[in-house]
Amino acid sequence: MTSPTSQSAVRWYPPSFDIRVEEVSVPEISEPDDAIVKVKNPHLVQLAALCGSDLHIYRGHAGVTKVHICGHEFIGEVVKLGSSYGGPAQGRPDLYSTLKVGDKVVSPFTVSCGECSVCRLGYTCRCPHGALFGSPVLEGGQAQYVRVPKAGGTLYNLSDTSSWSASLSDKTTAAALDKVSDSSLVLLADILPTGVFAAMQALSHPKVLTALTGRPCPLNFFPLRDLPSKQDALVQEDRTLTFAIVGLGPVGICAAVSLLDLLSTGQYSFRVVAIDPIESRREKMEAVYSKISPDGRGSGEFIVASIEDAKTKVQAWTSGVGCTAVLEVVGNNSALSLAYDLVRDFGAIISVGVHGANQVPFTGRQLYNKNVSLEFGRCPARTMFPPAFELLVKRQDVFGGVGDLSNLVDRIVGFDQAPEMYRAFEKGDVGKVIFDPWK
Amino acid sequence: MTSPTSQSAVRWYPPSFDIRVEEVSVPEISEPDDAIVKVKNPHLVQLAALCGSDLHIYRGHAGVTKVHICGHEFIGEVVKLGSSYGGPAQGRPDLYSTLKVGDKVVSPFTVSCGECSVCRLGYTCRCPHGALFGSPVLEGGQAQYVRVPKAGGTLYNLSDTSSWSASLSDKTTAAALDKVSDSSLVLLADILPTGVFAAMQALSHPKVLTALTGRPCPLNFFPLRDLPSKQDALVQEDRTLTFAIVGLGPVGICAAVSLLDLLSTGQYSFRVVAIDPIESRREKMEAVYSKISPDGRGSGEFIVASIEDAKTKVQAWTSGVGCTAVLEVVGNNSALSLAYDLVRDFGAIISVGVHGANQVPFTGRQLYNKNVSLEFGRCPARTMFPPAFELLVKRQDVFGGVGDLSNLVDRIVGFDQAPEMYRAFEKGDVGKVIFDPWK
Repeated sequence: MTSPTSQSAVRWYPPSFDIRVEEVSVPEISEPDDAIVKVKNPHLVQLAALCGSDLHIYRGHAGVTKVHICGHEFIGEVVKLGSSYGGPAQGRPDLYSTLKVGDKVVSPFTVSCGECSVCRLGYTCRCPHGALFGSPVLEGGQAQYVRVPKAGGTLYNLSDTSSWSASLSDKTTAAALDKVSDSSLVLLADILPTGVFAAMQALSHPKVLTALTGRPCPLNFFPLRDLPSKQDALVQEDRTLTFAIVGLGPVGICAAVSLLDLLSTGQYSFRVVAIDPIESRREKMEAVYSKISPDGRGSGEFIVASIEDAKTKVQAWTSGVGCTAVLEVVGNNSALSLAYDLVRDFGAIISVGVHGANQVPFTGRQLYNKNVSLEFGRCPARTMFPPAFELLVKRQDVFGGVGDLSNLVDRIVGFDQAPEMYRAFEKGDVGKVIFDPWK
Repeated sequence: MTSPTSQSAVRWYPPSFDIRVEEVSVPEISEPDDAIVKVKNPHLVQLAALCGSDLHIYRGHAGVTKVHICGHEFIGEVVKLGSSYGGPAQGRPDLYSTLKVGDKVVSPFTVSCGECSVCRLGYTCRCPHGALFGSPVLEGGQAQYVRVPKAGGTLYNLSDTSSWSASLSDKTTAAALDKVSDSSLVLLADILPTGVFAAMQALSHPKVLTALTGRPCPLNFFPLRDLPSKQDALVQEDRTLTFAIVGLGPVGICAAVSLLDLLSTGQYSFRVVAIDPIESRREKMEAVYSKISPDGRGSGEFIVASIEDAKTKVQAWTSGVGCTAVLEVVGNNSALSLAYDLVRDFGAIISVGVHGANQVPFTGRQLYNKNVSLEFGRCPARTMFPPAFELLVKRQDVFGGVGDLSNLVDRIVGFDQAPEMYRAFEKGDVGKVIFDPWK
């Protein structure tokens, strides 16, 4: 096969709202650690997805002026490898010795070297050698071919799961891959790990652990001290966890599914309200929940609500105390303010939304007076891949199909529909759209 | 003894900077759960301390208009008890059945009922039945007598340590009390627990636990999952903890002493920079450190620095990565901005400073782009009493004396000097001042 020299790609033009589908050059290997991935879909489904955080650039809110290929979610097949590949291991990440042309791969939405202190700590999305796909510094995944820098530290190899299956907790074997639809694999690039990240940050926060583990403060500082306690034991009311999820776009739904999955495994007493002002999003969340509730509810309660209804519900559930934690999956100040209103004193706000240039809407006094904890930032998608993969396998009923109300993925379209889909997604008229670049 | 009907007290007058020492009525029991505490000092030292957070009201920044008695730190002797006391236990906090007139007590700086869900969880400073001493809703401790509402849920009884000694971790017995100076006991009302709270929040934060425990993300979400890991083991560089403490007033020094104490017990590799722009505060921190360093340093490094020197040092220590966590012990936006500048990606800012009405100085993008965690709020001093008491006993060399550069307490004065001391403290010219209301 001779390589093509030109390809179709979805490109963004400044200043805003200008998406064009164009013929551009196929990327070449430019660094020894590069791989070129053919973004493809042997089963005629998907592959380069459209994500809420793309909207910041789309709307012109990100200060970007450079024309570039959009998109940071893609899977595909390796078609070219740089000179770093195929030799002995030499202490570098496994893929530098094992990755082969023809291997099927998932790329997290950011590049990470896998060899620095930041990567070793698991903070792969902030690797100093990293970059975000679909940004001015790195061409994105809404193309037929994508250059992946530091591919040996970045990619997950689906054709050779031995390199990562050991980091799965529930002995999900490589065989599980056979049960997973191609259209769902692209969810592993960003939105499913990001949802899992939100849920796991919430449940491992010290202020949530107080109720979760039944160890009141200061016993919740438990790695440090093993203080005995003469405090009264906690009662059911104290240990009941109340969560809100603000924003039911695709990531919000992933966060809800992950949170319910984690909670249901622990026999916790909990209540979750999932909030969105848009009715179609609430309907999808309801449909997803109706599928997972038989085994996903545990001993808890889950409702979907508008903003006003949610405030009333949290008030009633907690006698005015508020939520143990709020997951903010939107990325604007209205969502942060709502999270603040809903969270209890000594509660945690977990924000995985992509925020812009506005100052956050809190005074110091507000934060002090509620003893609020805030967690901000981007998901280290590479790090969160193993738990996200497990959830993907377990919940193919939600993530595997396309087009039903209860499926996360709404539709798969060709690049020709990209400008229209961007417009519709920006308005909230469609949910998760996947492009098939070969359609 | 007939009770006196009038007493001397330090009162604040609106709008600002107006402190008057006046004769006012001695408080009476007004609720069955009240106690009246005679703020006193049989050994001619201390008792109603002056704290940085009082300055917000003093300066007129807190929106307060009501004349009231200042101060939220005091110890003393119970002279009257309401009708709730002295009967059988009946499921209420122990003190309702055991507290007696004549008992010596420490009062945390806020009232807490000890009987609600918030208190059971250890979040005593946000008890819905609570109040802050020295505020418009509750007369303060800079008086000869203080009314303590919900005293059975609020006070620690120093004359009967059985009610709380079981919650000490190191078998510090009641006998330890004999070694503790009276002037140091008032530090248990606020500043020592607040310092311990800052240090413990830092060391138990998931983003610090990553390095502290050697379990990279997502293994740091450890109560939830026991994920195996094929990630490379962390190396020394990854596990070295770097902390900054912003602000070396009395609470900042307490935070430093607590942090070093906690770190030295664990054989961690660490570096701490303690920062203040005021030279006299840096000198005190140096003097305190020279006392504790023989057993307080562990395997770490500790330096005291100005703001600019600290930035350079953190840069050099971490090759530009930044601090694992920053303890903000000031309570203004300059301190928060400095904390942001110093903290690493995936780092934590622990703020125990009392903040005002300004919006916090961060954009959403700044917080997202650094994956920052922020912990805000008031110390639940009642909850933090046991570890603070242990540290007080252990570090009498620093907390026990008065007046030496290496002693936390600078001086003990009569109320007549209150207006002058407020002026000097506001300018940073004196450190921790304790009033003797009977001098």
